[in-house]
Amino acid sequence: MILTVTLNAAMDVTYWVDSFTSGEMNRVRRVVRQAGGKGVNVARVLHGLGHEVLATGLAGGTTGNLILADLAAAGIPADFTAIAAESRSTTVVHDLAAQEATLLNEPGPAVTPQECAAFLERFGELVGRASVVVVSGSLPADAPSTMYADISGLAAKRGVPVIVDADGATLLHSLGGAPTIVKPNASELAGALPELPDPPSPTSSRVPADLLGHLHRAEHLRDRGAGSVVVSLGAEGLLAVTGEGVLRARLPYRVEGNATGAGDALVAGLALGLAEGTAWPERLRRAAALGAAAVAAPVAGGFDEAVYAEISPEIVIEGAS
Amino acid sequence: MILTVTLNAAMDVTYWVDSFTSGEMNRVRRVVRQAGGKGVNVARVLHGLGHEVLATGLAGGTTGNLILADLAAAGIPADFTAIAAESRSTTVVHDLAAQEATLLNEPGPAVTPQECAAFLERFGELVGRASVVVVSGSLPADAPSTMYADISGLAAKRGVPVIVDADGATLLHSLGGAPTIVKPNASELAGALPELPDPPSPTSSRVPADLLGHLHRAEHLRDRGAGSVVVSLGAEGLLAVTGEGVLRARLPYRVEGNATGAGDALVAGLALGLAEGTAWPERLRRAAALGAAAVAAPVAGGFDEAVYAEISPEIVIEGAS
Repeated sequence: MILTVTLNAAMDVTYWVDSFTSGEMNRVRRVVRQAGGKGVNVARVLHGLGHEVLATGLAGGTTGNLILADLAAAGIPADFTAIAAESRSTTVVHDLAAQEATLLNEPGPAVTPQECAAFLERFGELVGRASVVVVSGSLPADAPSTMYADISGLAAKRGVPVIVDADGATLLHSLGGAPTIVKPNASELAGALPELPDPPSPTSSRVPADLLGHLHRAEHLRDRGAGSVVVSLGAEGLLAVTGEGVLRARLPYRVEGNATGAGDALVAGLALGLAEGTAWPERLRRAAALGAAAVAAPVAGGFDEAVYAEISPEIVIEGAS
Repeated sequence: MILTVTLNAAMDVTYWVDSFTSGEMNRVRRVVRQAGGKGVNVARVLHGLGHEVLATGLAGGTTGNLILADLAAAGIPADFTAIAAESRSTTVVHDLAAQEATLLNEPGPAVTPQECAAFLERFGELVGRASVVVVSGSLPADAPSTMYADISGLAAKRGVPVIVDADGATLLHSLGGAPTIVKPNASELAGALPELPDPPSPTSSRVPADLLGHLHRAEHLRDRGAGSVVVSLGAEGLLAVTGEGVLRARLPYRVEGNATGAGDALVAGLALGLAEGTAWPERLRRAAALGAAAVAAPVAGGFDEAVYAEISPEIVIEGAS
C-alpha cells in the first residue's frame, strides 16, 4: 500500500467558462468538484492505476467532510485526522476561448500542536502497512516546520521509503528526515536555495549548460539529506540526481493541456517505481509518462490512458554525467 | 410569518482578493459562504429585522444540504422540498484594488414534474400560515413556466398577498396569477417587454421624461395582471405604479458599496409593508432605505443598520402623477 500524506487537503472546484471576463458575470458551462491537495491527487492517480493506496492527512469543518465524502464516493481509502479549523477550497476557472486558467486559492486552516501530535501518532500506526510514503504540498498554518522531517523519520524507522514534494522552507526542513526522494520543479528548486552561488563553469561535464544550475542545487539538497532529487522541467522532462548518477528523461513531443496536477502524477510514477523496486531508468520513464498523460487530462488527479500508453515507450532516458 | 420562495436556491461564496488577475493564481484574503438565492436573501434580511419568516423552495444534492445547514446555523426557519439534482453555487470575487466584482454562476439544477408538484402541494400547506408570500429569482431548468402564477394563485385563494421579483418570461408568466406587487429593476422591466412601442409624448404628466418609458411599461404589466409595479432604479430610488397612483422614492445621497442583494433587501421592505398594512409612502420609504442599507453591507442578505437608520427619514416620497 502506498500511503499519501496531505496536511493541507482541499476541495477543488474546476469551472469551464466560454470566455472569462473579470468585473462581469460569467456563466459556468461545466463544474467538477473533487477532493484535492497534492497528496490526494497522487492517491487518485495511483488508485486509477489499480494500485492499493491510503490517503491520510488533516481535514476539518464542512469542507473537510466534503473531502472525506468525495474520497469515499471515489472508492479511495482514507484515514484523516480531524482538525477544528475549516479545510480550504480552491477554484480553477478554465477560459475556453483564451485557453488560460485563473486560480482562486483560499487560505488554509491553522492547526494546533495537539492536532499535529495526533496526526503523527496515527501516521506511526499507518506507516507499518505502507510500502512507500508520499508527502506532498504545503503545511497548514501553525504546523511545526519539522513536520515533514518528523514524518520522514517515522517512515525511515520502519524502513519505508519517502518521497517529499514541497517547496521553500518546507522542502528544506524536510531534508532533516533524510527523505528517499525530493521532487521540486525548476522554480521550486531555485526558490528553495536563492543564496546558492553559481555553479563552477562546465568543462568535462556531459550535463548541458542550461541544466548545470539545477544539477548544482540538486547536489546541494543531497548533501543536506535527500537521497535523490528529481527535478521536473515541464515539457523538458526530468533531471534525476541520484546516488547511482545523473539521469535525464526527455519527452518525444509536447503534450498540450492543463499542467495542474502533472507534478502529482509524476510523483505517483516515482512512488510506483519505489514500491515495485524498478531501476531508475524505468522509474523515470513511468514518472515522465504519467506527468505528460496528466497534462492531457482536464482535472488534477486524472490522466489520459491513451497518452500514457503512447508516450511511455518513446520517452528517452539518458545518462547525463 | 412572511413566506419566501426560492426555487433556485444557491450556496453563495464571496471572496475578497487584493487585486484580481485572470490567468494567474489569486490568493483569497477572506471567504464568506452562506445560503443564497434571492428569496433566501429576503428571508435573511427579514430575520435580521426580527420578523418571523419561513424560507421554502427547492434544494438538492450536497450543495442543497449545505444550504439547509447554513440556514439552520443562522436560525432562519426553512422548509424546502428535496430535488434529485444538485443545487447551484455562485461565486463573487471582490477585487479590493479595482473595486469591482467578478461573478461565476453555476448552471442551476433541472427539476422533474413530480418535484414541482410536490413543492406546490407543500406550498399550499405552508401558505395558510403566511401573512405575505415573496417569490424571487429564476426558475430551475424544466420547471413549468406557469410555476410563479400557480404559486400566486394558491396564495390568492387564501387571501395572502404575493410579491414577485423575477425577470424575462418568468416575470411575464407570473402575471397570470395576479401577484399583488411585481418588482423589476429598470433593465428587467425593459427586457421583459422589448416589443412595447414608445410611450405617448409627455404633455401634462408630472412624471419626468426619463421615467415615462418605465411608467408606460409598468402600466402594461398592471394591465396584464400585476396589482402594483415597483421599479427599482438603483441610486435613483424607486418608481411605484399602484392602484392608488404613481409614487417616487428618492434617495438623499448615493451609498457606495456592493449592489448585490440590494434588490432583495428592497423586496424585504415591501413585504414588511404588506405584512404590517402600512400605506404606500411608508412602504416605499422602508423598501428604499433597506435597499440603500444593503449596498453598504458586504454580502447579500445583510444590511448596514446605521445606514438604514440614518437614510430612512431623509428619503423623499413624491406623488409623481
